Amino acid sequence: MKNYLSINDIDSLPKLVEEAKNLKKNPKANVALGANKTIGLLFFNNSLRTRLSTQKAATNLGLEVMVMNFGNEGWALEYEDGTIMNQGTSEHIKEAAQVVSQYCDIIGIRAFAGLTDKEKDKAEVVLNGFKEYASVPILNMESSVGHPLQGLADAITIDENKTKKRPKVVLSWAPHPKALPHAVANSFIEMMQLQDAEFVLTHPKGYELDPKITNGVTIENNQEKALENADFVSVKNWSSYANYGKVLNQDESWMMTKEKLGKAKFMHCLPVRRNVVVNDAVLDSEQSIVIQQANNRTYAAQIVLKKILENL
Amino acid sequence: MKNYLSINDIDSLPKLVEEAKNLKKNPKANVALGANKTIGLLFFNNSLRTRLSTQKAATNLGLEVMVMNFGNEGWALEYEDGTIMNQGTSEHIKEAAQVVSQYCDIIGIRAFAGLTDKEKDKAEVVLNGFKEYASVPILNMESSVGHPLQGLADAITIDENKTKKRPKVVLSWAPHPKALPHAVANSFIEMMQLQDAEFVLTHPKGYELDPKITNGVTIENNQEKALENADFVSVKNWSSYANYGKVLNQDESWMMTKEKLGKAKFMHCLPVRRNVVVNDAVLDSEQSIVIQQANNRTYAAQIVLKKILENL
Amino acid sequence: MKNYLSINDIDSLPKLVEEAKNLKKNPKANVALGANKTIGLLFFNNSLRTRLSTQKAATNLGLEVMVMNFGNEGWALEYEDGTIMNQGTSEHIKEAAQVVSQYCDIIGIRAFAGLTDKEKDKAEVVLNGFKEYASVPILNMESSVGHPLQGLADAITIDENKTKKRPKVVLSWAPHPKALPHAVANSFIEMMQLQDAEFVLTHPKGYELDPKITNGVTIENNQEKALENADFVSVKNWSSYANYGKVLNQDESWMMTKEKLGKAKFMHCLPVRRNVVVNDAVLDSEQSIVIQQANNRTYAAQIVLKKILENL
Repeated sequence: MKNYLSINDIDSLPKLVEEAKNLKKNPKANVALGANKTIGLLFFNNSLRTRLSTQKAATNLGLEVMVMNFGNEGWALEYEDGTIMNQGTSEHIKEAAQVVSQYCDIIGIRAFAGLTDKEKDKAEVVLNGFKEYASVPILNMESSVGHPLQGLADAITIDENKTKKRPKVVLSWAPHPKALPHAVANSFIEMMQLQDAEFVLTHPKGYELDPKITNGVTIENNQEKALENADFVSVKNWSSYANYGKVLNQDESWMMTKEKLGKAKFMHCLPVRRNVVVNDAVLDSEQSIVIQQANNRTYAAQIVLKKILENL
Repeated sequence: MKNYLSINDIDSLPKLVEEAKNLKKNPKANVALGANKTIGLLFFNNSLRTRLSTQKAATNLGLEVMVMNFGNEGWALEYEDGTIMNQGTSEHIKEAAQVVSQYCDIIGIRAFAGLTDKEKDKAEVVLNGFKEYASVPILNMESSVGHPLQGLADAITIDENKTKKRPKVVLSWAPHPKALPHAVANSFIEMMQLQDAEFVLTHPKGYELDPKITNGVTIENNQEKALENADFVSVKNWSSYANYGKVLNQDESWMMTKEKLGKAKFMHCLPVRRNVVVNDAVLDSEQSIVIQQANNRTYAAQIVLKKILENL
Repeated sequence: MKNYLSINDIDSLPKLVEEAKNLKKNPKANVALGANKTIGLLFFNNSLRTRLSTQKAATNLGLEVMVMNFGNEGWALEYEDGTIMNQGTSEHIKEAAQVVSQYCDIIGIRAFAGLTDKEKDKAEVVLNGFKEYASVPILNMESSVGHPLQGLADAITIDENKTKKRPKVVLSWAPHPKALPHAVANSFIEMMQLQDAEFVLTHPKGYELDPKITNGVTIENNQEKALENADFVSVKNWSSYANYGKVLNQDESWMMTKEKLGKAKFMHCLPVRRNVVVNDAVLDSEQSIVIQQANNRTYAAQIVLKKILENL
């Protein structure tokens, strides 16, 4: 693997999931692989799971880890070509990416969607800026458009919990007081299209995602109908894509409950707002597999880093 | 040792002090003990000594260390049960503690008293939230009620400097311009009760600490009288407990001076405001053992982590 | 080497450059040298290159690294002697420096000039405070007066690129919208005086640097004339020294361009504001060696740390 920018950088998802499950049994087996190599984890946004699980994964592979909160520890970056940089930005992505490549063998980037400028978010200026100018592989730790480490962790978790060859998996929108990015939902949908499952996407009208990503996906606006006989229900809020970055409604009736969930397993990428996105009864039940999902973030990151290291 | 939440988690303080002193002679002797294990140090408040000494101690034991400033790098946590989380908090302690437990074998927590809500501070919501929901041992790196790593470092320092079997140790309040927590004083008092010494607590009226902690302790409001023939004088400011979190007075006459100190050794947990809490003449004299105290923070943390690791 | 506070702490620059170039060929050759030792990197200001390259260098030498953003993670420090500390500062440099010395075998310090109080900046209160009170070696990671790791990296880069024994090297001022410190320019000038080269300093009138540093240096206010037949052109903005910390002009005609550069190599310490300090055509050409300069930051730090470690 050269870079890991999107779920679609995976050759065969089922094969990679299998390898991740093996590695989970013996996380230190490849500790020699990263010896004398360094990964830089650059955070332009907050992070708990990604921060700790990616560090853990890198350490399991013997990599040295340098963590940097780019926003308040470094310099404000410029992404436009040809700008006269006499305003707020101090350093161009061209230099920053090349410079960090001198110190790191792999660069991880977390840079969320700003949710104000759709075209800028779609262009993924931070992630793609590093990809274009860095001379080392880039790991997407959540960009404006995707969160492929989460998507891969979700695939591992579904695989570990499925009791039939072709489970029914539902991704359901849920209410939230703040405008959230589309990245997690996008990567979940892309991930589902790389494996054998019955996949249904459900959300209120107005919450349609990028049609390029949902192309070919079954969309059902009736949540109850979508959830029928589901084996896995993954819940997530996102803001409007058409009316970009707007919170159109916070319809409480879309909150996930024990009744709606039926016998399905409950998934969420976390952090999750209790009793807004999902109620306590679901999260505190044995049907919730969110902690297992969080644990699999380590092995998702580790298998991806392993593939990148093997390709160096 | 399962957790280290309070000085009272220590079985035998004199024995632990002895072990810490041995380990100080050969800090790397147990470097294999933490191999392939990870400690997460979560800071909800500023830290210099605790941050560096706990990292150093963990590294001496071969642990991998992940440091996180939870407040500005992670998500605002909710601690109440049953809340509808549609306000400022993004993640519940239930998930956060379980999730961090997936990545770390031990979790260190620093979360100061807010000094506005006495009941909330006494409940130690952050520390106890992690204790309740984490599946790994918890290390208290200063909570609202106690600072047991400091208390243990103080015990080691007293032991190293005492010239008689049963020294006289005084804990004296001192003035300070800001309202400070009770944690350091509490742990010092608890620590003194676990060893053979003549212990006197002195403070102006109104600065009584939690009576549950000072139960059985000699309290003397006349500082001069309290200090008579002292072998060790530990100085610390704290705000009022009864009139919770208030600065009742900044009586300069309580500042520690060379005259008052007599022949005693001077102790302070640091940081210390010079010429407010204690004057330069004391700090710059050979009677001050504050730097040795700070050094012992490493060995206090290391002996505690060693006990926790041996119990894993 | 005891400390590395200034370029002038180097015995023989040509010899050290030679050693750095050898170490660059085999960066892990001395990984045993730092074993069981710890470096603390204390940042009072933002940093990208210094942060990552110094960590990388330390790791190459087998050192444990503890990074701390002192400003927002620790306590506000007092530097004055005898102060009654009842205002904004919580800890005196006397304690802070001694305490950090308990946990670290080497301390790196980054503390920029404030550019408001010339005497205070010249006194280098932070760096010199640590030097005075720490009991371990101090590494200057850019102080108010100098940036000797940058200066050494520049020397390595010039050596790697020179095609004649005595190249002509020009340091040229360039415009910038904000007031910048003199540290990088100072160390470049000091570095040039330690080797055999034709060195010319060029800047508009009013931008004279500290005469103690430029003593004996050829200064030419006509940029075009200064640049004639240059082999290396290092560009940097700095604010006025006489009219301390002021931006006297932002004369665009001083921006470096392809025409002015001629056949010279272009150098800059980065971050650089494109099309303000230098235009895109220069930075994107093969004449720019700024990325190589940034890479050499690792080996500058590593050779200095090696010398310090060998002297421990």
